[in-house]
Amino acid sequence: MERKKLVEIIFEKKSFLCVGLDSDIDKIPHFLRSEKDPIFSFNKEIIDATIDYAVAYKPNMAFYESLGSKGWASLEKTMDYLKSKSPDIFTIADAKRGDIGNTAEMYAKAFFDNLGFDSVTINPYMGSDSITPFLSRKGKWAIILGITSNKGAEDFQFLDMNQGSGKKLYAEVIDKAMSLGSDENIMFVAGATQANLLVKIREIVPSAFLLVPGVGAQGGSLQEVCRYGMTKDCGLLVNASRSILYASNKNDFSEKARNAAQELQNEMSQILDNK
Amino acid sequence: MERKKLVEIIFEKKSFLCVGLDSDIDKIPHFLRSEKDPIFSFNKEIIDATIDYAVAYKPNMAFYESLGSKGWASLEKTMDYLKSKSPDIFTIADAKRGDIGNTAEMYAKAFFDNLGFDSVTINPYMGSDSITPFLSRKGKWAIILGITSNKGAEDFQFLDMNQGSGKKLYAEVIDKAMSLGSDENIMFVAGATQANLLVKIREIVPSAFLLVPGVGAQGGSLQEVCRYGMTKDCGLLVNASRSILYASNKNDFSEKARNAAQELQNEMSQILDNK
Repeated sequence: MERKKLVEIIFEKKSFLCVGLDSDIDKIPHFLRSEKDPIFSFNKEIIDATIDYAVAYKPNMAFYESLGSKGWASLEKTMDYLKSKSPDIFTIADAKRGDIGNTAEMYAKAFFDNLGFDSVTINPYMGSDSITPFLSRKGKWAIILGITSNKGAEDFQFLDMNQGSGKKLYAEVIDKAMSLGSDENIMFVAGATQANLLVKIREIVPSAFLLVPGVGAQGGSLQEVCRYGMTKDCGLLVNASRSILYASNKNDFSEKARNAAQELQNEMSQILDNK
Repeated sequence: MERKKLVEIIFEKKSFLCVGLDSDIDKIPHFLRSEKDPIFSFNKEIIDATIDYAVAYKPNMAFYESLGSKGWASLEKTMDYLKSKSPDIFTIADAKRGDIGNTAEMYAKAFFDNLGFDSVTINPYMGSDSITPFLSRKGKWAIILGITSNKGAEDFQFLDMNQGSGKKLYAEVIDKAMSLGSDENIMFVAGATQANLLVKIREIVPSAFLLVPGVGAQGGSLQEVCRYGMTKDCGLLVNASRSILYASNKNDFSEKARNAAQELQNEMSQILDNK
């Protein structure tokens, strides 16, 4: 999906909500576990319940890989279902991949060409040639880890680089990545638990889209994120996973998921109107 | 597999060869492509041909994921086959994963508990809590990216940290990782295209095992790697992928793969004898 289209959808739906499909076999409602493909059944219900309020879906690969080839098949079915529901949904493979050039190309093939994702999250540690294979397809995106929302983010991402400038590693990563592509094919992960850092990221990339995890279960504030990170094109995809997926683990799980998504979308709609 | 056992096998087989199962559907011999599961058929032949000369096998996940759930099934069959051939083989999931704690645990489940790998390669960018979930199972290993063998390694891994010491990022990563575990459950990836850097790595971790890619097709020298990286316990797993897998793409591919593996093992045997 190209940037122009993504921005259109955001303003049409008045939402920049991304639903994280971190679908955990041990957390989905018990009664679904007797289904033939419990993870797909769960995803289908969640998608049906939330698609009016969301512009993006982001399955995290770990949850599917933990179930082996069957989990990967659930992912394939989920992607087919999403595409059949609407062409106007932005999809993110939360894979955090990164490998040498020819191998990175295999990952690009896996997620873009075969599964049909619009974007893949990329771990930048291995540098340029681990990123560029994800930048060569029109309308496809690399979403590069800048600042992550976990505690361990502090271990390396905030180390000062010896450039006489006190520049941090995450800033080096963002600078380097933007030299390889543009805000038409690169986004950044920017952890929302540190909303004031969005100011610093916006100094480096005033217009790139940011994928913001950590709102909801991880404690980030939507208002703060928007205050510091929003652009005239919105420029944000805000992810919520657990607060939607596991709003209830009973028969009413999809209704409760819908309510949780709608509540976030309401807040987003007001923020977009006030902007 | 515990460290003691790994060292035993290395000295028994007089080999520290790891065969990288980067099995690419577009590169395997043409006549195999009509098989029901061409990748598994290829891997089986490669394993049979090389197992006398290798102590470890390392499938790179990208090649399996590029084929979707079928590729993942080929991987599952390959792991079952390896385990049926010999319990004395060290297995490495070259996955380069890294995610927040609860998600990293899902990856640990996928590779250790379900697929039965002894080790997983880990990308350290997200810090401690992306690493620790891989350290809690006895006999299982995290193999952390230190210095990679690609050109992009220079982009971030060699940036100076502002600690007044000119310490590089890769050294920070190695130090931090070793504070989380020990040389009984942590190894490091150390790219062989820069063999003199092994000296610097050995200053930080005198006894940890190093997984060395880049020998062969990527141009690294085995003699150099051993001069600078070998310890009294060997302390090295040297990977070769393309130079073995694609030594021939004709009917004699497995014979040629055997020859390539045997040649490397011969050289390794002499090095171990001279040590």
